[in-house]
Amino acid sequence: MSQAVGRDGHAHGEHAFDEAWFASRASAGVQRLRAYDPGHDLVAMRKRLGEANLVELGSNENPYGPSPAARDAIVAQLQALHRYPDPLGADLKRALAAKHGVDIAQILLGNGSHELLMQLGQVFAGPGDEVVCSRYGFAVFALATQAAGATLRMVDALPGDDATMPLGHDLDAIAKAVSARTKLVFLANPNNPTGTWFGRQALATFLAQVPDEVIVVMDEAYAEMADADADAASALPLLGAHPNLLLTRTFSKAYGLAGLRVGYLIGAPGLVAVMERLRESFNVNGPALAACEAALGDEEHLHMACARNAEQRAALAAQLGQRGLRVYPSQTNFLLVEFGPRTARIEADLVARGVVLRPMGGYGLPHCLRITVGTVDENRRLLAALDEVLA
Amino acid sequence: MSQAVGRDGHAHGEHAFDEAWFASRASAGVQRLRAYDPGHDLVAMRKRLGEANLVELGSNENPYGPSPAARDAIVAQLQALHRYPDPLGADLKRALAAKHGVDIAQILLGNGSHELLMQLGQVFAGPGDEVVCSRYGFAVFALATQAAGATLRMVDALPGDDATMPLGHDLDAIAKAVSARTKLVFLANPNNPTGTWFGRQALATFLAQVPDEVIVVMDEAYAEMADADADAASALPLLGAHPNLLLTRTFSKAYGLAGLRVGYLIGAPGLVAVMERLRESFNVNGPALAACEAALGDEEHLHMACARNAEQRAALAAQLGQRGLRVYPSQTNFLLVEFGPRTARIEADLVARGVVLRPMGGYGLPHCLRITVGTVDENRRLLAALDEVLA
Repeated sequence: MSQAVGRDGHAHGEHAFDEAWFASRASAGVQRLRAYDPGHDLVAMRKRLGEANLVELGSNENPYGPSPAARDAIVAQLQALHRYPDPLGADLKRALAAKHGVDIAQILLGNGSHELLMQLGQVFAGPGDEVVCSRYGFAVFALATQAAGATLRMVDALPGDDATMPLGHDLDAIAKAVSARTKLVFLANPNNPTGTWFGRQALATFLAQVPDEVIVVMDEAYAEMADADADAASALPLLGAHPNLLLTRTFSKAYGLAGLRVGYLIGAPGLVAVMERLRESFNVNGPALAACEAALGDEEHLHMACARNAEQRAALAAQLGQRGLRVYPSQTNFLLVEFGPRTARIEADLVARGVVLRPMGGYGLPHCLRITVGTVDENRRLLAALDEVLA
Repeated sequence: MSQAVGRDGHAHGEHAFDEAWFASRASAGVQRLRAYDPGHDLVAMRKRLGEANLVELGSNENPYGPSPAARDAIVAQLQALHRYPDPLGADLKRALAAKHGVDIAQILLGNGSHELLMQLGQVFAGPGDEVVCSRYGFAVFALATQAAGATLRMVDALPGDDATMPLGHDLDAIAKAVSARTKLVFLANPNNPTGTWFGRQALATFLAQVPDEVIVVMDEAYAEMADADADAASALPLLGAHPNLLLTRTFSKAYGLAGLRVGYLIGAPGLVAVMERLRESFNVNGPALAACEAALGDEEHLHMACARNAEQRAALAAQLGQRGLRVYPSQTNFLLVEFGPRTARIEADLVARGVVLRPMGGYGLPHCLRITVGTVDENRRLLAALDEVLA
């Protein structure tokens, strides 16, 4: 490294101080890390086109919004903004523990489940360790692994035919990919961006194959939206028998509170205690804590939103199918849809009409778009724009 | 490790699955990490005693609250809670860039500056690396170092006499503690929990002594509250000459928005770009982004809060001094006060009267309490309780 002597007689380097230089000073994981791609710049598009002219179906948001009680809870907090939030998040954790029938010591709150997934990587994986997940899994699994400097073993998904769950997790292959170096396995059920899911027996069989030194993470961000008869398994009833298993959930989807960034983890008390060491005391903010607690108390609103979503999901899938498009099965609030080799052009033409979907090139599915299931009106506008574009 | 063969024929371990076991699976840093101590459980105290019966002077909150415009901005967001926040935080960053006369590429937003400090450790320090800070520095500096698995070099503070800034950063000693292994130096100006500060010339002299491979972090959480004539230096005017220097600030103190968790970093664009790789896209929530942008636009409110704080700081220091207590100099919204060997008892007696201060045992100052400067009324109630307790 070239050095110069400064006017104070002390050696100063002649560094570029650019991104490459700072990256060379960074941990191995961060050197290779690329940030999460959140999709189109919707703030800029709203300003340019006007919100009323946009059909925002790219981020799997809940168009029915949160319980009105959540808004009221925020308003009730407005005189306390100068106070730090409860560092324990005790009221929200008590409500979650009661809802899920677990102990409060089994719950960890996150600034979105994104934070929890990143910290799981940070705590339990490092250089030389392996992390296993499925191809077409949630992008944050790879980021959490990279940031920790661990090695990702990405297992091929089930074939894209209808014999099995197309593009779904191949749980047997995932179990076989677990080695003595594996510290974490990331699963998602239902999975984003494929919409696929697996059943309780499949999960039990999988867990029996995985050594209990390996921590198995089930991201269940879309769990509330799965049909009751779909057999999309939750990790919840298996936590007792498998203390190496944990689940993450979010208020961003079924609860309609993506703007507030609250996720939570349920797992063994010992695991939660270790994760608590790294948690920043005030990682969930005051209005968010209050709103989530209120939203949790409004089961009726939750059921309304999930029922409407299920109804519209079926209707939209049928409409897309009638246009000759392949629609993958889904138990979420989005559909993965094949548009073939013209996908990028179709997506750009839709954006030009104010219809925002999520391109899937970053997930290795460049011929697909992910479409959030909207309201009746949003879906109608999407289909009208699509008919123009496909014509 | 003892192993048993499960009913499925697969080897399962016989683990305790307690905190110690999960910690044994964790990274070296997390194995040693102990969580940040946020002080008394104020939520429980509010419920028990009633908020009106509490005098909350333990967390350096701003009793004048935020600009009313911040509350209005949150109300205006209530119909958009189901939308993800702007992942770029572009509007807030533009406002910050304009205010500070820097480029938007020099700004990174954090879920509180706590998150930024933790991630600075995570990105730039690791096992085998050293991090240097002052004794009696902000507790998060040590946490960020531990979590990263790096080694903390804590440098003695200036002597507790009045010849120099008592308990202040010994910048010469800090510069001398920098070795070839040092990756980061954490400074705070003014410093929490001592209230001490240093001037621009001292900072320039320090920077000239430190190799420019070493990243120097200046936490300026209390910067807005320093008197204009106090010469409490900001890193801001030195960033151009020292691209290894960065600063962190917060909306939790002078802006009265501790409940929202927003901090920011200003540094070289290359440094920000590397840190952006690790940032979770939606780390600052929607209401928080909107409220901070609004608060930033209300300079009048900021100046009012800082002026009242300065006035009350002087008045409270004088009142405490009249009681024979040693009050350390401060350019913040708190005072470090010596209560002698009876400190723990005095603190407990004050809590019994609903007066919450911050014990300093965790900082190695067991004979001191940190007292947030309150309103006229809060300070009066504090002094009345103190007179009872000291009698």
